[in-house]
Amino acid sequence: MAKARRTKPRIQASAQFFEEDNQPVVLSPQDERALAQIYRLAQQISTAVESQNDPTLAIPTRSLGNVSFNESKRILEMGSKTTSRELFNLSQAKSFMQTTLVASGAKRLIEMGKTTSIRGLYYMLKHDIKPTKEPTFHNQGECDPIIEDCEVLLAALREELHLFAEKRGDMVGNIQIVDSGDEIDCSRMGSGGYAIPSIVEPSVVQFKKCDADFVLHVEKNTVWQRFNEDKFWKKHNCILTHGNGQPPRGVRRLLNRLNTELGLPIFCLLDNDPWGYYIYSVVKQGSINLAYESERMATPEAKFIGLRSRDFERCGLSEGVKITLNDLDRKRAKQIAEYPWFIHKKDWQREIDVMLRNGFKLEVEALVSRSISYMTEEYVPRLLKEGDFLD
Amino acid sequence: MAKARRTKPRIQASAQFFEEDNQPVVLSPQDERALAQIYRLAQQISTAVESQNDPTLAIPTRSLGNVSFNESKRILEMGSKTTSRELFNLSQAKSFMQTTLVASGAKRLIEMGKTTSIRGLYYMLKHDIKPTKEPTFHNQGECDPIIEDCEVLLAALREELHLFAEKRGDMVGNIQIVDSGDEIDCSRMGSGGYAIPSIVEPSVVQFKKCDADFVLHVEKNTVWQRFNEDKFWKKHNCILTHGNGQPPRGVRRLLNRLNTELGLPIFCLLDNDPWGYYIYSVVKQGSINLAYESERMATPEAKFIGLRSRDFERCGLSEGVKITLNDLDRKRAKQIAEYPWFIHKKDWQREIDVMLRNGFKLEVEALVSRSISYMTEEYVPRLLKEGDFLD
Repeated sequence: MAKARRTKPRIQASAQFFEEDNQPVVLSPQDERALAQIYRLAQQISTAVESQNDPTLAIPTRSLGNVSFNESKRILEMGSKTTSRELFNLSQAKSFMQTTLVASGAKRLIEMGKTTSIRGLYYMLKHDIKPTKEPTFHNQGECDPIIEDCEVLLAALREELHLFAEKRGDMVGNIQIVDSGDEIDCSRMGSGGYAIPSIVEPSVVQFKKCDADFVLHVEKNTVWQRFNEDKFWKKHNCILTHGNGQPPRGVRRLLNRLNTELGLPIFCLLDNDPWGYYIYSVVKQGSINLAYESERMATPEAKFIGLRSRDFERCGLSEGVKITLNDLDRKRAKQIAEYPWFIHKKDWQREIDVMLRNGFKLEVEALVSRSISYMTEEYVPRLLKEGDFLD
Repeated sequence: MAKARRTKPRIQASAQFFEEDNQPVVLSPQDERALAQIYRLAQQISTAVESQNDPTLAIPTRSLGNVSFNESKRILEMGSKTTSRELFNLSQAKSFMQTTLVASGAKRLIEMGKTTSIRGLYYMLKHDIKPTKEPTFHNQGECDPIIEDCEVLLAALREELHLFAEKRGDMVGNIQIVDSGDEIDCSRMGSGGYAIPSIVEPSVVQFKKCDADFVLHVEKNTVWQRFNEDKFWKKHNCILTHGNGQPPRGVRRLLNRLNTELGLPIFCLLDNDPWGYYIYSVVKQGSINLAYESERMATPEAKFIGLRSRDFERCGLSEGVKITLNDLDRKRAKQIAEYPWFIHKKDWQREIDVMLRNGFKLEVEALVSRSISYMTEEYVPRLLKEGDFLD
């Protein structure tokens, strides 16, 4: 085996790299931290080779068995179990190669000061391993879990590795931000709004001035449009966001930052159905698959402001708005009721139980059957005033 | 039969209605035109009743048989065929009722100065017809085609009836707009961008100042992020939009307005696959289902700037980026080649033929395999310089 070339750490506080067109790239402290982690990994492999040991990676295990609910922090957390991935093991050599390849891709992106989508990274790294015709990745499905491995291995969010997810979700309200050097006043964003980027780390998005008292996060963009048109955020001095269904990473991270950095309460207006409960669970406690990122992606302080199982009667809705529960709904509702962060909460157990006994679910739009602006002028204001929400 | 109450037209140039909270509603000229159309419809039914005739609606037929390609305007157009919908016809009475119900819903929305989603309208209109338990609509699937009927019947886009679609798609670039009274400088929108609203009619969105020379419309938001991060729109003095796949109505209407009102060329960067071709077809010629709106939704001047079937070789892409065509791809490609607006274009016939002979398709992201910014720094600039695009 040829002697491996020594990889010298070359990270310094003021390190500057060069983009393809020779513009110097200024690294953020986050960039420097991520690069240092990548070099640490490379050093570790290189050291193993030089001391004639088998190169091995200890990848933190990302399965349910290694995830637990931290009662005091109120978020999902990863445990300390790791899985060993060895270069000199026939069944692991390929994924070892893929892991270092993804890490080297992240290094290139950071040094260039560029970001790409996970699909872009896949295309960037895919090639045949000469002289064989064996591709580095057969498809993106092979690459995505390796990206997650690298996130836990390097203790970095994928955004810090310069990878972005699809973006969807918009914001308006009484806040001024700076995004990539541009000052954006979210109270002057018309009917369209500010499109929340995929990467909202402090290196990209800074909060400049915020007068808002809270954040109202709604599930759907159509509902968001109703709230924006009625200038709800102006009347109630708040910020209005949506995530077009299950909020993408950028939106969840932004909610987390609005809560932890600005101290704003986050109220979630979601459907009265298992999917709405699940969205709430992900916003509040984090995702089971990606428990390692909960610390910065989840917002344990978030509150659920509706819709509620009691609302059909309480709001005097018309019969036509009921949507009968199907078997999958019932199954999912029971699973969610068993989640460790719901199982000890009487309010949530009652909520889910009433929905199951009702036999129907309700969408937020069902409130339109009362009147077009019932949700913005009566429903949410009343619950806010009465402090009537689920935790 | 009881004598119908006479519906007096009460539309005047300066008509003011009142919102639920008693704020006067100022009607736009578009609102007044749409209301006049609704009153005309009501008057027509009322006149029939008073003269003891059976109330009948003549609904323009929305099937392929009543759609043709207008060679000189280069858009899809509806023909003049209509279908009669009668109140005193057992099989048509319900849809007659639903049609007038949707029209009355639009009237309420316009008079209140509010908009809603098509799902919102469904909830707004759904109720049991007393004393029966028969609902006005069983589900949204019954309501949506009636909305389209009303659009053609009233010669109004659904946006003019105050109905909005889901919104997705963002914009940045050298243009300043006014959206609902807010001035928005799209050259100062950071990494997130201005979220394009569903309703971009001149009553909502006005163009204030535009220095841009053209519009680059890309298919995916991840590609848009690459172009925005590389400040492509600044270097090439343009506007950058995406529609997250098949662009929604708001984005198509905006492209149409940017082209027809500001005279900007529209270049579409889409995948080299049947879906990319289809998106181009919808942007350029309009949608077959909704041919009646092509005049304001389609942009016959749009150009296709890639990806092209020749690009695998021409751009020296690596083997791994090929995606093998499946049977559905082949079938769709052949159908699209037969569209009247493609069938006489040699360039398009060759393009589709080469893709079929290649046996593979290519995504825009495949260009990343050359280098991360190859698409923004080499591919698109070269085609723009050489004027090398498909019409």
